[in-house]
Amino acid sequence: MTETHRNHRSSCPINAALEVLGDRWSLLIVRDLMFAGARTYKDFQSSEEGIATNILASRLRTLQASGIVTSRRDPEDGRSQIYRLTTKGVDLAPVLMELSRWGSRFEDGEPRHGLLRAWDADPQAFLTRLRGAMLETEASQTPGRPRDN
Amino acid sequence: MTETHRNHRSSCPINAALEVLGDRWSLLIVRDLMFAGARTYKDFQSSEEGIATNILASRLRTLQASGIVTSRRDPEDGRSQIYRLTTKGVDLAPVLMELSRWGSRFEDGEPRHGLLRAWDADPQAFLTRLRGAMLETEASQTPGRPRDN
Repeated sequence: MTETHRNHRSSCPINAALEVLGDRWSLLIVRDLMFAGARTYKDFQSSEEGIATNILASRLRTLQASGIVTSRRDPEDGRSQIYRLTTKGVDLAPVLMELSRWGSRFEDGEPRHGLLRAWDADPQAFLTRLRGAMLETEASQTPGRPRDN
Repeated sequence: MTETHRNHRSSCPINAALEVLGDRWSLLIVRDLMFAGARTYKDFQSSEEGIATNILASRLRTLQASGIVTSRRDPEDGRSQIYRLTTKGVDLAPVLMELSRWGSRFEDGEPRHGLLRAWDADPQAFLTRLRGAMLETEASQTPGRPRDN
């Protein structure tokens, strides 16, 4: 084991990714932030899959510790937090798109034709638009604050 | 909930995929079958990450029940099984490739430059070669047996 890989069980990049994400609830939280406009604890709880409160809290902590999600205090309600994806989080889009394709082809998920067409037509443009949309949201919500990624 | 989605908590194809795969060990077993030439129980056990015997057995059962992996008796050792990916399993390659890219970019996984270059250059050709290699293995191992997917 090298110094570089001290935090993981092997040097395999698939394993490195799965050690952070190897739990379906984590990727569903990323999905909700990326495609469903979820921003608050309540938004995540209202997802169709019905995530349990304790799992949601623990996965949000892990996602923040891993630098995939950041949060800030809601200016309109000091007791609650607003969550968003970092660049590291937005860059999970290709994984989610390929999971979506597989889940509609081989399991019984409803195909997201529009998203998949845009992804297949130009993956780079798809990612650039998505990153732009996420940073725009951040910039418009906290004017003057430097982008932190 | 519609009749079509009776087996899943929602119609989301990402969720449908994660309900089958939402565990890092399952995808590591698929990785070993796809890229490391693993075929037997012992092969999986010798992976760097050190999967526990009970987890390996349970994940192989789930992967077979989901139609991602098939097995047959080893003609040279009647007590052991030889495992391989089905078409449904091989078609997880895009998910693994994008996980691999993310894990080497943002976590400390060692980048698999050769594989990623081939994947980026022509994803369809990459998948076609991979499917061909898997079916060839099967055909050469069990002459005369019809391809089951």
